[in-house]
Amino acid sequence: MLKNKDKTNIPGGFLLSAGEASIKKPGRKDLALIYSKAEANIAGAFTTNKVKAAPVKLDMEKIKTGRGQAIIVNSGNANACTGRKGTHDAAETAALTAKNLKIKPALVYVCSTGVIGTLMPMERISSAIPELTSKLGQASLKDVASAIMTTDTFPKVIAKKIKIGNKTGTITGVCKGAGMIAPNMATMLCFILTDIAVEKRALSKALKDSVKKSFNRITIDGDMSTNDTALIMANGMLGNSEIKENSATYKIFKKALDEITHGLSMLIVKDGEGASKFIEIEVKSAVSEKEAERAAFAVADSSLVKTAVYGNDANWGRIMAALGHSGIEFYEDKTDIHIGGVQVTGRGVATGRDNDANRYLRNNREIKILINLNMGRASAKVLTCDLTEEYVRVNAEYRT
Amino acid sequence: MLKNKDKTNIPGGFLLSAGEASIKKPGRKDLALIYSKAEANIAGAFTTNKVKAAPVKLDMEKIKTGRGQAIIVNSGNANACTGRKGTHDAAETAALTAKNLKIKPALVYVCSTGVIGTLMPMERISSAIPELTSKLGQASLKDVASAIMTTDTFPKVIAKKIKIGNKTGTITGVCKGAGMIAPNMATMLCFILTDIAVEKRALSKALKDSVKKSFNRITIDGDMSTNDTALIMANGMLGNSEIKENSATYKIFKKALDEITHGLSMLIVKDGEGASKFIEIEVKSAVSEKEAERAAFAVADSSLVKTAVYGNDANWGRIMAALGHSGIEFYEDKTDIHIGGVQVTGRGVATGRDNDANRYLRNNREIKILINLNMGRASAKVLTCDLTEEYVRVNAEYRT
Repeated sequence: MLKNKDKTNIPGGFLLSAGEASIKKPGRKDLALIYSKAEANIAGAFTTNKVKAAPVKLDMEKIKTGRGQAIIVNSGNANACTGRKGTHDAAETAALTAKNLKIKPALVYVCSTGVIGTLMPMERISSAIPELTSKLGQASLKDVASAIMTTDTFPKVIAKKIKIGNKTGTITGVCKGAGMIAPNMATMLCFILTDIAVEKRALSKALKDSVKKSFNRITIDGDMSTNDTALIMANGMLGNSEIKENSATYKIFKKALDEITHGLSMLIVKDGEGASKFIEIEVKSAVSEKEAERAAFAVADSSLVKTAVYGNDANWGRIMAALGHSGIEFYEDKTDIHIGGVQVTGRGVATGRDNDANRYLRNNREIKILINLNMGRASAKVLTCDLTEEYVRVNAEYRT
Repeated sequence: MLKNKDKTNIPGGFLLSAGEASIKKPGRKDLALIYSKAEANIAGAFTTNKVKAAPVKLDMEKIKTGRGQAIIVNSGNANACTGRKGTHDAAETAALTAKNLKIKPALVYVCSTGVIGTLMPMERISSAIPELTSKLGQASLKDVASAIMTTDTFPKVIAKKIKIGNKTGTITGVCKGAGMIAPNMATMLCFILTDIAVEKRALSKALKDSVKKSFNRITIDGDMSTNDTALIMANGMLGNSEIKENSATYKIFKKALDEITHGLSMLIVKDGEGASKFIEIEVKSAVSEKEAERAAFAVADSSLVKTAVYGNDANWGRIMAALGHSGIEFYEDKTDIHIGGVQVTGRGVATGRDNDANRYLRNNREIKILINLNMGRASAKVLTCDLTEEYVRVNAEYRT
């Protein structure tokens, strides 16, 4: 049974379970089930990659109703590029889970993460589902977060308590990240659960807006996955009056949601494959937010910038070169660059303070790079990590 | 003096020189001079990065006349992001060289490659120019190719002899590459010299068309530099009647030029920073050449694909994921992927031949990946290399 301290962050009415189906190497949890006692409102955000995994296509269909009650997730196999058999397997996983839970299959969502192009071991999954169902309530948030890990090195959970009227509700996010993280979410699975009642449209808008400035502003290696999914379930067990768009309670709810998605984004980047440093790139005074975002991503995705940070080298010339090929409107001789508190570039030329910036890089693991374009009023922040030998090793050996 | 075998590939009327100005670490050549006894027609292709090095801006102005007689090149310092002083230094380098050669400064082109954001050591360069000039004729093509190297591990020269009428002319290309290689040329310097007389407009068109399918179809790390320049000088010393566009001799000339630019492109990729494997990515049956090129670059720039090749892992799922976020029109269930001669994906799903493909990867250093979209009739090839721990090391330590 769960200890009290493990229970307290699970929102009211949700039961969790985690199990093994030998999809990953034996001895590691690779299956998780999230179940709400009551049918819930549900909203989702999905990969924009044209190649979508079978479960993603399934969930995108189901979510049109805005209703759900369970999510079954596996790690170790992405069920992507698996053709008709893959589509069938995802549907069957939902159907089997629904049967065991005695709910409608339409209320069960399926998520997968792992290797692409390999058929799911359906026999092992099918046999694991009854036990997974019967053990509902025995797993902690951390157990679920661990079961969905691939190359992640630690489980990722963030919970918040907020007051809605005179009641205290819970919002909790569980996610996995690690590789293939790029704009538009990548191999990221995120499940946000809340006992607060939120109207369908408001829930969908809150998730979409929140994802835009969190999960869609992180990048590990510029690759975007076939599987990323963020789902939010609101089961209303708190008994508050349903939150609607543009209300005062919506703002409170949205703020807490943003803290969770931003916090989880930071955890994903900190756990980037092989990362030794966390990097925040802020572009200020751009002509539009879109240009600021584009510039920040160009710098964040530059292998040369990322290896320079890894090597503690304040090589701001590489930042300028990345800005130069980003396609945004800017002038070299208007641009200032700061690494940590150290201004290394003033109006496009060296300030001579590279040594101070090198020292800052050597002494810190959380690196801030600020680029001031001195053009307009828009800004954007993107989170990334450095590029290390370990990234190469992790990805060269992923399937072996 | 040069031995005969070193001389034979230098086109008629060209004299070379290489020297040291301690721009790189002492003891390594870092300055080269190319001089034509007669004024020549000249054409150029330059970086499309918005941040352009001072010499690039200078050369782009000069080349409007289509005339030139000398090129002075340094390695070790890019003279980029160096503000007004940098612009002045590039102009002064041209002026000093012109004075020593007793020609007009407008006929002297300047190229730089190396670290960005550091002022040129003008005193050392100025004092090196007289000796560099006086030693003209003593350097080989290999000496020049070596003097312009940065992280390159070998000098890059290709020469061709072709018959124009009853005369045999020479076209020779010298280049450097290594890092920051991406579409639109990157930190690539390339000098092509010929004694064949080619009309200005024809020379410019031939270079532009040739660069488009060679240097603009290679990528090492997706970064594009501030300095890339390709210059071609045709001094007419062969005495043939000037080659004009759309003539029979134009075709012969263009064919030889294409062989040189394609050959040099291959050498650049083979010498990619830390590369252990050379990768050719061909996308076939796309709806347009532009889409084929875009798809091939998306795969070529995927860190996940590059590390998989390094790890001898036929992880074609990563290729599909890269295609999926490339933005091109395609269907997963129409796509075939071949690694070497091994078809790993048929109509979007596994063929079960990954082990054969893994063996091909293990046993070969020149890897061919063929993607058939089965959509239209257009195709494109892009050259790249794998991503290794050594790439990270080279770039983490570049300035130290």
